[in-house]
Amino acid sequence: MQLADSGFVLFKEGLPDTPSIEAWLSTVLPAGATVAIDGTLFSTTAVEGMMAHFEKYGISLITDFTPFDKIWQDRPTLPDTPFFGHDLEYCGENATSKIMRVMKAIKESGADALLLSTLDDIAWLFNIRGKDVNFNPMTYAYAYIDDNRSILFVKSEKLNEENKTHLRAIGVEQMPYEAVFDFATSLCNKKVSINPAKLNYTLYNKLRTTTVRENGPIAMFKAIKNEVQIAGIRQAMVRDGVALVRFFRWLDSNIDLGTATEISAAQQLRAFRAEQNLFVDESFGTICGYNEHGAIVHYSATPESNALIRRKGFLLVDSGAQYLDGTTDITRTISLGTLTPQQKRDYTLVLKGHIALSRCQFPEGTRGAQLDAIARMPLWKDGLNYLHGTGHGVGHFLNVHEGPQSIRLQENPTPLVPGMITSNEPGLYRAGEYGIRHENLVLTVLAQETEFGKFYRFEPLTLFPFDKRALDMTILFPHEISWLNDYHRMVYDRLKSSLTSEECEWLREATSAI
Amino acid sequence: MQLADSGFVLFKEGLPDTPSIEAWLSTVLPAGATVAIDGTLFSTTAVEGMMAHFEKYGISLITDFTPFDKIWQDRPTLPDTPFFGHDLEYCGENATSKIMRVMKAIKESGADALLLSTLDDIAWLFNIRGKDVNFNPMTYAYAYIDDNRSILFVKSEKLNEENKTHLRAIGVEQMPYEAVFDFATSLCNKKVSINPAKLNYTLYNKLRTTTVRENGPIAMFKAIKNEVQIAGIRQAMVRDGVALVRFFRWLDSNIDLGTATEISAAQQLRAFRAEQNLFVDESFGTICGYNEHGAIVHYSATPESNALIRRKGFLLVDSGAQYLDGTTDITRTISLGTLTPQQKRDYTLVLKGHIALSRCQFPEGTRGAQLDAIARMPLWKDGLNYLHGTGHGVGHFLNVHEGPQSIRLQENPTPLVPGMITSNEPGLYRAGEYGIRHENLVLTVLAQETEFGKFYRFEPLTLFPFDKRALDMTILFPHEISWLNDYHRMVYDRLKSSLTSEECEWLREATSAI
Repeated sequence: MQLADSGFVLFKEGLPDTPSIEAWLSTVLPAGATVAIDGTLFSTTAVEGMMAHFEKYGISLITDFTPFDKIWQDRPTLPDTPFFGHDLEYCGENATSKIMRVMKAIKESGADALLLSTLDDIAWLFNIRGKDVNFNPMTYAYAYIDDNRSILFVKSEKLNEENKTHLRAIGVEQMPYEAVFDFATSLCNKKVSINPAKLNYTLYNKLRTTTVRENGPIAMFKAIKNEVQIAGIRQAMVRDGVALVRFFRWLDSNIDLGTATEISAAQQLRAFRAEQNLFVDESFGTICGYNEHGAIVHYSATPESNALIRRKGFLLVDSGAQYLDGTTDITRTISLGTLTPQQKRDYTLVLKGHIALSRCQFPEGTRGAQLDAIARMPLWKDGLNYLHGTGHGVGHFLNVHEGPQSIRLQENPTPLVPGMITSNEPGLYRAGEYGIRHENLVLTVLAQETEFGKFYRFEPLTLFPFDKRALDMTILFPHEISWLNDYHRMVYDRLKSSLTSEECEWLREATSAI
Repeated sequence: MQLADSGFVLFKEGLPDTPSIEAWLSTVLPAGATVAIDGTLFSTTAVEGMMAHFEKYGISLITDFTPFDKIWQDRPTLPDTPFFGHDLEYCGENATSKIMRVMKAIKESGADALLLSTLDDIAWLFNIRGKDVNFNPMTYAYAYIDDNRSILFVKSEKLNEENKTHLRAIGVEQMPYEAVFDFATSLCNKKVSINPAKLNYTLYNKLRTTTVRENGPIAMFKAIKNEVQIAGIRQAMVRDGVALVRFFRWLDSNIDLGTATEISAAQQLRAFRAEQNLFVDESFGTICGYNEHGAIVHYSATPESNALIRRKGFLLVDSGAQYLDGTTDITRTISLGTLTPQQKRDYTLVLKGHIALSRCQFPEGTRGAQLDAIARMPLWKDGLNYLHGTGHGVGHFLNVHEGPQSIRLQENPTPLVPGMITSNEPGLYRAGEYGIRHENLVLTVLAQETEFGKFYRFEPLTLFPFDKRALDMTILFPHEISWLNDYHRMVYDRLKSSLTSEECEWLREATSAI
């Protein structure tokens, strides 16, 4: 709608009929044409793919073109905001230990140094966090480690006494952000581990030494949370649950006052979270979608679209927070009044999928793509489906979407292993009518070990009830009812001591057995 | 056990600790060594992989070494057994139509000719069958097609008046089997479609023209059965079911007579099938495993291992037949007497997995790896598992194991589409105790089309009851009981008119509602 009459035609990436950018360019450009890009904005893999494709069509590729320098006169500079150390009491492993583990792993693959451009990997490795990216507590940086040196490349303006002390304590040198390019060229007699799918091409192109191309160990190390992190996220979930209780109680009374809109509700939810200890930020922009807006998967209310929330249908609220001790992400869909039988059935089918995935047990080595259908089966059986993934990895006071694991239709070779935090979020979207999604974060834990090997299960971390008023009891199995009652009992037990007596009473009712 | 003291060490392929043959050779051979193989016995992909690996270690590879010529003095020649045409009333599509479809598809990928070494693809393409391979009705041959010629390379001794007439009718020339190598060299100005994972390296190496490397269209065309084939397999399943009723009744009385052994049972089963119309052969060697032998997944009774079947525990019977109108494959595990609670629970858990997969509905585009866990979930939940695939494709009067689809843990990009015939065969094996497997062949069919797209389901083709005496009723859900009763009713309805009144009575009891 926004592009109408703009002269631009929208291609939605990833659809079967959408050509890749390079495939499209090669159909509209003549042989002998030149395509120019800013190589710092494309991964090495992406640029190599373009080059191989363009070569077949006689098209040249220039990778040092910086168009914004010419057309964006008042472009802000990179932020100077200082980064800060993430305390051991929250992250649970000091940077020296992490650097040792990483060096050991890259040596096993034949490298002796590591060059990193992935901001969350750098944040994890050096236990630093920043404020440069909305919702994702990272700082713009590059990093390099080998046996003798660890270097963080950041703007010097970001340094202050505190973060200098942090870097000194973990033996990390600081060099200017832009210095990484010359530094890369200066590396010789090093076998540098790089992840071509992540490293920007311009930096890769500066290297004159040999490389070992690999995913590298950090993604997996970062995904497997340690005991301190797990204890932290459990605490964060209690605070998040308290904020959610306050929010949904607030919502209830404000609907009746006619003062709750999608935007005011999202603001109020942020305010209740911000009162909580260790709160830093939201982990993404709240999706608060009333009825038909709930059917737009990544809906973000604008002043123009902002709906007044009334006593009819569903409200879908997908939100999360960054606490120093963990990152939360929860979706609840609540009944606002009398629901149609189809609405109740839809709500319950999605919940059956959520419960099936939450209850399942699976052997060591199982990949998310093997489990994705478990959450979809009740919907599929009714000819229904949702077109997003069922689960994504979640960082620890880091990105709310984090690899390497996922629970999706698409094959992903990463197995689900104990310590990983993943979302469980099946949904159903009836365009123009309503959307339903039920999302908890779950921790992969060891369930049992038998003669057939180790078996894992998911333990729910999120603490907030599902709306019982929307259930179609006729299609729930006894084991599904048991799961829901057990989960609700846990929610109540873990939250009650942090609530006022009125809130406690509200939660007792919301979590009472069905 | 057989290799003990032989001087050979067994490496089981595919296990995490087993090196590939080339990786192992490169650890035991010095640089400068030469490895010699017979290139007709390795795919192009395999040889190219070896070459790339050996190059790193300074090892040479010779591909024209034929060791058996030197050490196997009385080696039989390739069989002269004539092949025969597979009638249109069974295969449903004439070879001319198939050749046109295949040529159209390979042209879309830029080729203009096709060179084939895959025996079942050749059998499918030209509607010919043979007797050269046990259980798999194929003839040793190569094939080539382009817009102007279709050539079958077979030993001239295989020709007779009938198959000559068949070839003439479909416009296929015959050339001698060995002539394919010179023929390949003679091809020029052709872009030849080849599947490097299937074409033997020696033949590939003879090509002097350009190639298009692709899987090629035949695997998918062959997997999607036409209406004549589907009607045929339904008829074949009735005859197979009748033979199975006779066999299991025979078994019942012979156990009491003390005359039933694993081998005599398998022979008797073959005899009952051989009495059926259109029977050609078994589709594989019957696996008839009594108690602990049932826990050996590919058990084949020998005179030494041959067990007398008594009234205790389980008998696992996995068997199938080649009929002119279709290929069958069925496993039933029957109770021989009083079972322990664990035996009943195990039997029922495996059946719950079989039923879950059989009942499921899934959207267009779904791959087998997404559904595999559906069949395993009841076992996984108890810390149990089986280490084989859940389902394999099945040919039509062709190989009982046929690609390209599968239902396995491992990713396989092939979607399950209507017309495919696949096995549904979860199992459980307690080493030294007993094995359980429940296998039906199922047809993928369109279930419904909604605003969310097309949804498919599996329709059972196999017609024989599961042993109700082994059920643990306490863990069956009502929808599982309904499925079993519905399936049993269908089995009875489809078989009853082909049975004697005594057999009918036996089947009525075996299929009565639980």
